[in-house]
Amino acid sequence: MTSSPADALLAGNRTTLAAYRVKHFLWSVTNGVATITLNRPERKNPLTFESYAELRDLFRQLAYATDVKAVVIHGAGGNFCSGGDVHEIIAPLIDLPMPELLLFTRMTGDLVKAMRHCPQPVIAAVDGVCAGAGAILAMASDMRLGTARSKLAFLFARVGLAGCDMGACSILPRIIGQGRAAELLFTGRAATGDEGYDWGFYNRLCAPDSLLDEAATLASELVAGPTFAHGITKKMLHQEWSMSIDEAIESEAQAQAICMSTRDFERAYRAFAAKTRPAFEGD
Amino acid sequence: MTSSPADALLAGNRTTLAAYRVKHFLWSVTNGVATITLNRPERKNPLTFESYAELRDLFRQLAYATDVKAVVIHGAGGNFCSGGDVHEIIAPLIDLPMPELLLFTRMTGDLVKAMRHCPQPVIAAVDGVCAGAGAILAMASDMRLGTARSKLAFLFARVGLAGCDMGACSILPRIIGQGRAAELLFTGRAATGDEGYDWGFYNRLCAPDSLLDEAATLASELVAGPTFAHGITKKMLHQEWSMSIDEAIESEAQAQAICMSTRDFERAYRAFAAKTRPAFEGD
Amino acid sequence: MTSSPADALLAGNRTTLAAYRVKHFLWSVTNGVATITLNRPERKNPLTFESYAELRDLFRQLAYATDVKAVVIHGAGGNFCSGGDVHEIIAPLIDLPMPELLLFTRMTGDLVKAMRHCPQPVIAAVDGVCAGAGAILAMASDMRLGTARSKLAFLFARVGLAGCDMGACSILPRIIGQGRAAELLFTGRAATGDEGYDWGFYNRLCAPDSLLDEAATLASELVAGPTFAHGITKKMLHQEWSMSIDEAIESEAQAQAICMSTRDFERAYRAFAAKTRPAFEGD
Repeated sequence: MTSSPADALLAGNRTTLAAYRVKHFLWSVTNGVATITLNRPERKNPLTFESYAELRDLFRQLAYATDVKAVVIHGAGGNFCSGGDVHEIIAPLIDLPMPELLLFTRMTGDLVKAMRHCPQPVIAAVDGVCAGAGAILAMASDMRLGTARSKLAFLFARVGLAGCDMGACSILPRIIGQGRAAELLFTGRAATGDEGYDWGFYNRLCAPDSLLDEAATLASELVAGPTFAHGITKKMLHQEWSMSIDEAIESEAQAQAICMSTRDFERAYRAFAAKTRPAFEGD
Repeated sequence: MTSSPADALLAGNRTTLAAYRVKHFLWSVTNGVATITLNRPERKNPLTFESYAELRDLFRQLAYATDVKAVVIHGAGGNFCSGGDVHEIIAPLIDLPMPELLLFTRMTGDLVKAMRHCPQPVIAAVDGVCAGAGAILAMASDMRLGTARSKLAFLFARVGLAGCDMGACSILPRIIGQGRAAELLFTGRAATGDEGYDWGFYNRLCAPDSLLDEAATLASELVAGPTFAHGITKKMLHQEWSMSIDEAIESEAQAQAICMSTRDFERAYRAFAAKTRPAFEGD
Repeated sequence: MTSSPADALLAGNRTTLAAYRVKHFLWSVTNGVATITLNRPERKNPLTFESYAELRDLFRQLAYATDVKAVVIHGAGGNFCSGGDVHEIIAPLIDLPMPELLLFTRMTGDLVKAMRHCPQPVIAAVDGVCAGAGAILAMASDMRLGTARSKLAFLFARVGLAGCDMGACSILPRIIGQGRAAELLFTGRAATGDEGYDWGFYNRLCAPDSLLDEAATLASELVAGPTFAHGITKKMLHQEWSMSIDEAIESEAQAQAICMSTRDFERAYRAFAAKTRPAFEGD
């Protein structure tokens, strides 16, 4: 027997996803950066029951991936995502009994949970239409690059629903402020790229032609950083959401002490002392 | 007996408010939009013990109103509201024993609670002076339209009090950010219309002449929408205030499943399929 | 015996700090305004184990100070603070066992807790470099004045650590929004003065030459205000951080009733009735 209990721990919590097969969108991994491409451009990349489930499963797997350190999500053909498909999602929902409606809303919510629980920073590259569940995917990402022509619309009210979809009433106000979030969620109106930038929804506006490149570059820079620590940053942003300040400070004292025990922290110091750039390895 | 237990449920939870009588401000209801006009323009519309109590009782009744689907609140004569009247509120407070002071601060807090608990979106149309308790009324609304000449001042510090009035230390930072809120609450200084817009306090700046019309139009658009769902949006924005993200997502899964069981959701789908605009009915 | 139990209460909770001796930064008190000057300008005012501990102890003492009503913190020589000293902090941390790492991260966290728990508003005057733990000191202040040339960088990721340092993942998003905070914490990039102002991190941008004067003037204005009430404002901003709206409103009803029992509230009313300016005394 060469296998130890520690090996078993690692085996059960480590996988690679470069060759992960998905059917309902495109997936690729290059140098630690995974790219998700929503790819039904003729319909502005709507989501279906199948793509929701597949995205949820993929983001859950990312928790165990050793070969993915950052994720870029974008849409093909000049639009990000038009949200839940009217024919393939809304039509069947009309006739579902309550337990199955809840099955659906929990599935979509589980996608956002999985996006928030995976350790990789997720960067949304948003051009064109970014509506409904598409707006939620952008909101649930860690950072967002937009374009001037992007149209962000939480249009749930337009289809007779409430703005409380997949965490929007909790997350959106913390990104753009409670008053602006209320307007977008009550009215369903589209926010322009400039509005989204001024409000802090987008971290940056890019030319449509360079949007994906800039997102990939930002992702690569994160991959070149201390990726274990990045995962802790993401976890704590999530974890401290509804803590008191004093609780948050104690939690951070513990979390940062963990990071101070990593080799990346030592690598950074050694590089500084040697007047070189640190080569982080994520451990 | 034609009355069933369900009839009793409806009877106890439904009322109409078009003919509701108030003494200390103006009240009207037109096509589902209620308008509250603070109406002591010669004093810039201050609040009194009586108007606080009357506003609190009215907003509590709104929870049962079937004929009001959105509320506009504004002030007569080019000012929104100058806050608690110095002679009619501050003077008597000076001599009150503690239990009665608490009776007062709880009454004013109950007004904000009632504004947050009624299902109707509340739109504040803010021109001119918006100070003290007036600033709180604007803050406690769901959306705010302002004017360039509006003056927003949480001036509690100027009268020897703390900024923690009627929820301001909790709500204001979530609208404009913790740093800006701290400045306004510590110093009592007035924020200009431009500042209020840049900071996300106002959703829009309007010309003074068109302010009330624009607020009424926005309210009418909400009334033409899925008003039951709007009530759920408002409830969840309130409910998720201090939840974790994961709790918020589960709460939204349940709340949105409720909305997916409404006729308005089906109406929206049928209209979409028929390439018409949905006629929402709020059920 | 001239001493009563009440005297003992006051004696144990009152001290003066004008003559407080510190070794690792400068400290002065003038007319109720204390000034902390980080004073190692040749190294851009880094922090050391000793200065952290001394700052923590000083801010804890401020809870009992009767002669300090507002605090200004700034750095000598055109920079605010470069953060934890690489040689004096990072180097020794590399070799520490976990319990001592936690001792360090709790000490730094205790500094932020002490800054949030003292009743005095703290104003950071930020010029030049404001990095790492320096950025945290600015963030943990109540208000911030900046300069166009200030460089704000939460550069923990650059040294192999997570962004969750001393409360940053809880506090920074509430000041500048969740999306902007995520970018600064993940990337460690520097924000310009203009960005910091647009995002609500700085309350105002000043010319470098007038920065300290403007901070001192703002502090003096606060000292001339109802300082007991200011302490309650600060306490409630802290206390309500993770409360529900309804809980916050009840807490504020109680806290404001306390302030309505103070002499400063009466002074303000008497001054108003006499058409003079109130002379607040902080009781």
